[in-house]
Amino acid sequence: MDHRDLPNDALGAGGEVGSEVGSEGGGETSEHITSLEGIPALSLDAISSVAYGPEAMLVVLATAGAGALAKIEPITVAIVVLLVILVFSYRQVIQAYPDGGGCYAVSKANLGHRASLLAGAALVVDYVLTVAVSIAAGVAALVSAFPRLAPDGLSIGLAILAVLTALNLRGLATSARALLLPTAVFIVGIYVVIVAGLSRSHPVAGAQIHVAVPAAAGAIGVLLVLKAFAAGCSALTGVEAIANDVPAFREPKVRRAMRTEVLLGGILGTMLLGLSVLTVRFHIAPEASQTVLSQITGASVGRGAAYYVVDLSTTVILAIAANTSFGGLPVLASLLARDNLLPHVFALRGDRPVYRYGVVVLALLAAALLVAVDADTNALIPLFAIGVFTGFTLSQTGLVRHWHHDRPRRWWARAVLNGLGAVMTAVATVIFVVTKFTAGAWVVVIAVPALIFLFTRVGAYYRDVAAELGFGEVPPMPGAEKSLVVVAVTAVSRMTAAALGAALSLGDVVVAVSVQFDDASAASLRADWDRWDPGVDLQILRPATRSVTKPMLAYLTTVEAETHAHVLVLIPEVEPKKWRHQLLQNQRGILLANALRRHSDVGVARMPFHLRRM
Amino acid sequence: MDHRDLPNDALGAGGEVGSEVGSEGGGETSEHITSLEGIPALSLDAISSVAYGPEAMLVVLATAGAGALAKIEPITVAIVVLLVILVFSYRQVIQAYPDGGGCYAVSKANLGHRASLLAGAALVVDYVLTVAVSIAAGVAALVSAFPRLAPDGLSIGLAILAVLTALNLRGLATSARALLLPTAVFIVGIYVVIVAGLSRSHPVAGAQIHVAVPAAAGAIGVLLVLKAFAAGCSALTGVEAIANDVPAFREPKVRRAMRTEVLLGGILGTMLLGLSVLTVRFHIAPEASQTVLSQITGASVGRGAAYYVVDLSTTVILAIAANTSFGGLPVLASLLARDNLLPHVFALRGDRPVYRYGVVVLALLAAALLVAVDADTNALIPLFAIGVFTGFTLSQTGLVRHWHHDRPRRWWARAVLNGLGAVMTAVATVIFVVTKFTAGAWVVVIAVPALIFLFTRVGAYYRDVAAELGFGEVPPMPGAEKSLVVVAVTAVSRMTAAALGAALSLGDVVVAVSVQFDDASAASLRADWDRWDPGVDLQILRPATRSVTKPMLAYLTTVEAETHAHVLVLIPEVEPKKWRHQLLQNQRGILLANALRRHSDVGVARMPFHLRRM
Repeated sequence: MDHRDLPNDALGAGGEVGSEVGSEGGGETSEHITSLEGIPALSLDAISSVAYGPEAMLVVLATAGAGALAKIEPITVAIVVLLVILVFSYRQVIQAYPDGGGCYAVSKANLGHRASLLAGAALVVDYVLTVAVSIAAGVAALVSAFPRLAPDGLSIGLAILAVLTALNLRGLATSARALLLPTAVFIVGIYVVIVAGLSRSHPVAGAQIHVAVPAAAGAIGVLLVLKAFAAGCSALTGVEAIANDVPAFREPKVRRAMRTEVLLGGILGTMLLGLSVLTVRFHIAPEASQTVLSQITGASVGRGAAYYVVDLSTTVILAIAANTSFGGLPVLASLLARDNLLPHVFALRGDRPVYRYGVVVLALLAAALLVAVDADTNALIPLFAIGVFTGFTLSQTGLVRHWHHDRPRRWWARAVLNGLGAVMTAVATVIFVVTKFTAGAWVVVIAVPALIFLFTRVGAYYRDVAAELGFGEVPPMPGAEKSLVVVAVTAVSRMTAAALGAALSLGDVVVAVSVQFDDASAASLRADWDRWDPGVDLQILRPATRSVTKPMLAYLTTVEAETHAHVLVLIPEVEPKKWRHQLLQNQRGILLANALRRHSDVGVARMPFHLRRM
Repeated sequence: MDHRDLPNDALGAGGEVGSEVGSEGGGETSEHITSLEGIPALSLDAISSVAYGPEAMLVVLATAGAGALAKIEPITVAIVVLLVILVFSYRQVIQAYPDGGGCYAVSKANLGHRASLLAGAALVVDYVLTVAVSIAAGVAALVSAFPRLAPDGLSIGLAILAVLTALNLRGLATSARALLLPTAVFIVGIYVVIVAGLSRSHPVAGAQIHVAVPAAAGAIGVLLVLKAFAAGCSALTGVEAIANDVPAFREPKVRRAMRTEVLLGGILGTMLLGLSVLTVRFHIAPEASQTVLSQITGASVGRGAAYYVVDLSTTVILAIAANTSFGGLPVLASLLARDNLLPHVFALRGDRPVYRYGVVVLALLAAALLVAVDADTNALIPLFAIGVFTGFTLSQTGLVRHWHHDRPRRWWARAVLNGLGAVMTAVATVIFVVTKFTAGAWVVVIAVPALIFLFTRVGAYYRDVAAELGFGEVPPMPGAEKSLVVVAVTAVSRMTAAALGAALSLGDVVVAVSVQFDDASAASLRADWDRWDPGVDLQILRPATRSVTKPMLAYLTTVEAETHAHVLVLIPEVEPKKWRHQLLQNQRGILLANALRRHSDVGVARMPFHLRRM
């Protein structure tokens, strides 16, 4: 996608970021990855969701009694069918958008401006939720192994978030190869749990299983099944990540990315099926003190070393999954900022390749969510997946339009597959909103339109600014005027001499101005000035109040009107060598500069006087 | 006192504050107060200390068993004797320093630089402790009446602190008249408690008194009596406040202030004596859940409406007492800043008559103390009073020197009185430090020298700066040089045109410079520029990294060396009408300006382009 063609992109200093558009769509990794490395690099968000997806289903089913828990098997089968459709749909997304294109880009290209706003809003909501859910689930895994940590769950979650934020602000370079080991430990661990569990019909000794659920609390209605399905779909979040970042792969990119997508589908699908069979076999029900995955692990391999390896690798993998959102949201926010839908600071980078503002905003929002639900994963699940599935639907729909427009060979077959994906994910989204509305989905139903409103307001502002700055037009010819340089003086010193020198170099007329509050200091300054006699007039202002800025503004308004010259105010300032000495400098220069900039048209120059010794 | 004669006072922009010295020593109240109004305006810190002073004594005595509690009577008599000496000593301070002079000013005038540093440090410590102790004691009074609030004591204290801070940042105008009513309610209330208590020999029904102290836990040694005395002296803090603010009184100032001092001594002394008699009569011992004053009140007037009036007015009076420190520390910090002993920002005021930095620092330090001791008054008492009594000693000693130097009529009698005050308070200070060292006094013993060290380091820095700026010397003649104005450009727009116009008005040579990161945007800018052809050269910099500041700095270094001209960098910026739209502006202008100011000698002018419509 190319943002350069948008008129507002080159928005002067207000939007100088426009000039920054480059190749950072997805090509920032210096080393390109293989199909296998695509799993740790791009698929952990999806794979780690086995830690909370099955549990989310059980929590819903448990409300209908222990008998309902077995329904997890058919519902998981339905979810895996949806997964298969999504995997093949996304293989087509990879082919169609080999430059990598999130649902925001696909929507913008194929479905127009409004759909792209919806996609952007849904993605923002979802990145925030991914961070919050992954961290909460990671804490739950940790607490399952070490129950004494339970009272500090929220603090641990916030600490993990703080560490991730700090790493990302420093510009963490995540190497796919470094993540291979923990990923392998986790995946092998889960498979060992499944195989061990399937090979025995009773849980191992030492693992206690409490079924605290009444035998039959109610009928198993369609609504309940739909609710459980909706909750379980949280396990499918992250399936889109590979398609978003195709350029990260080594050549042949498309082929490798497609292979990773299938690999991801295979791993995730078999894990979900295996775990659902084990929950039924071991009569596992949700518990407050232990995650479902922890219970299954304990029942399959016992509470020995193997248990701790699986459980702790779960926490690690979930923390890494949260970290992928830190890679995603700031980049998305920078794209939205370049499209003039978010404040331009989100596209601002310092000398480090990090979008600081996006990282900080993501951290604050995720922290607020964690605090609001006290780091309880299952309280976040009803909010989750709505955004992801909205994105799925938009991507698939966009691709149908894409095939219809481009008409490659067998385009109709491709369109049918993506169309099927679009319909199924759309149906799923509706199910989420309807079944989980009162449980928390209303938050998303409010947040997404609110974000869209924000985008449009921001967009309107930048459009107005662009019009006022006259982008695209040829501006008038600049012409020289007479110039008046006003030097803000507080005392006679070498710094004042340097400032007057600069002023005399720049201005046709130079005047020194000083605001004084009492007679004695005014007279003393006047005497010092006369003794020096630097050839520049000194105006001493004596205001009635103690304000420095107000008399300066009044004075400047008068001289501007009288002289019709271009006015520059020069504020000399001591600039010490050491940073900590900045604390010892008076802030009045900054205050005066800001006030003048805000309330007058004059240019304001702060002139550093560098100390040589300090 | 006059700070104008200090050489560093006129420290250029680094110390432009020097020009601010005016009449704010104490004359900021627009309405001057009468003797009676002096009690609410200047004496609440002292009077409110009856809420914690007697309790502090009992806490010490209780360690030696119930039998020791009666020792409160003779110890209180000793404290009241000290009070009488202090009152008459301070009447002399008022006569000698009718312009108001805290112990910092008196020390500076009579005892030299080092003593004034000690006085300043002691006062800073004490203002912070007054806030913390008053708030903690106010919370204790509140919790005594409403025990269910006990678990939230710290939160309530921090909330009170937050309210006081907010009011003071807004420039709270405390009118003495507005404080008359709560002050009268409190004083009358305490006298009613004393009279009612003395007129009955047994506590009223309904008031439970638990004596949880063993009958005889140990011998009553000299050390214990000294400890209790030291703790009880916390009730004398604030006696100096009237003398610090004589100009606040209506004419004849001196006579009125002296009358208020005597009035304060009379009220405080009788209250302390009356309450000590009642604690013995009602066998009152310190309790965790209720303050001593609350127990006495309950025993005297019962737990009816009268109790709640006295108890709640205690909380209110303590909050107001805390507030007086907010009046004191920021002014002291501004005096220290003008004497170049603290960073000059402490003397900086905005258009509101508030020393913001002093208020904020005081609030943060008091909050830290409250959190550290969990808002427990008695944990702060060992730290308290050391600073105040150090100040007492310095003031009285300074006055002895003053009388000796000025030699008015009967100067030796005056010198003897102040000398007696100095000796007694010096002895008391030594007793505090020795008896309470391990209980917390060590904090003050470390903090005071640390502050003195800070003052001297800051002073040395400002002296060096003054030398480098050449204060007092006649600076060299400023001369005009050739000037080069560099305009930082990001796009072609009306704002760019305005900036070029300003640059052409100011500079002998003008060049436009733009940093671009990719070929396409560079080519597009070049094309726009050529189409416009404004008569100014455009230099496009193409750095290897994504930094804007580094290539700019490199470019400026080159042109400075080549042209030998005075260089001004002009950064045009969009300036929207509404504050909230500032959030939509890119921060790059600020970042670039700060980096250039820090790392080069060039002047940096940010030029506002004011939007007319937004």
